[in-house]
Amino acid sequence: MSTLQHRRAVAGDLAAIIQLLADDELGSAREDPSSPPDPRYVDAFAAIDADPNQLLAVLVDSADVVIGCLQLSFIPGLSRLGLWRGQIESVRVAGSRRGEGLGRAMFEWAIAECRRRGCGLVQLTTDKRRPEAREFYEALGFVASHEGMKLIL
Amino acid sequence: MSTLQHRRAVAGDLAAIIQLLADDELGSAREDPSSPPDPRYVDAFAAIDADPNQLLAVLVDSADVVIGCLQLSFIPGLSRLGLWRGQIESVRVAGSRRGEGLGRAMFEWAIAECRRRGCGLVQLTTDKRRPEAREFYEALGFVASHEGMKLIL
Repeated sequence: MSTLQHRRAVAGDLAAIIQLLADDELGSAREDPSSPPDPRYVDAFAAIDADPNQLLAVLVDSADVVIGCLQLSFIPGLSRLGLWRGQIESVRVAGSRRGEGLGRAMFEWAIAECRRRGCGLVQLTTDKRRPEAREFYEALGFVASHEGMKLIL
Repeated sequence: MSTLQHRRAVAGDLAAIIQLLADDELGSAREDPSSPPDPRYVDAFAAIDADPNQLLAVLVDSADVVIGCLQLSFIPGLSRLGLWRGQIESVRVAGSRRGEGLGRAMFEWAIAECRRRGCGLVQLTTDKRRPEAREFYEALGFVASHEGMKLIL
């Protein structure tokens, strides 16, 4: 773990991040890992990178190879006395590096980032088809108090 | 309905919006409707207003009295081919105006705004202590496919 580090993603990480998103039971049907990246990914990266309330982060090894990714959104809101929320999305660890506790390390880093940004709450939604993910989040202290509802347009 | 309209919230709406947030079974314990507004609300309003990916909206009657509110967050992301998400939060209708279908009208307006902004998905989380809210969202086409997990910091 000591040689791994989290850093903000740069454009050169995009292909590696897309590979991570596609290397997933649910993601494989939804993503396109072809090279060069689909322009929709390039546009999305630019939008994330330009938004000071978005933080796309990668976990890299000592050779700066991307082995994990996640996106943090810092959301201002009026509810709960003007509470800022940190929202975690698109978390992936490389298949070759699973089982080493890297997911937990990434979440601990992400939660610390949320604290640093003044958030009073961290939230995420997890697909009900991944019951083991829910248990992982509960071990980190998350409570499944809400239904996560989606409407595809 | 014809005399009602949605518009972007302005600073002068803040007290009315806080009243709406506090006039709620769960919100009454979490909000402070005292006047002038707690500085934390004032700061949160400024942060929302300054962020082009946040839209705090109010529903007003023909006299421009606030009778509903909601917050939309437009979130860029890489997942699902660079899909933008619209996220709906803090939806309230004035107690005196419940039962008129205003909640449904507000959601239809919000979903249309998400389409207009190019979102491919609209999402929200709803507290499991509000089963009737889940049914309301399902009637609008939302699917409770995810667990909504929260971690209070």
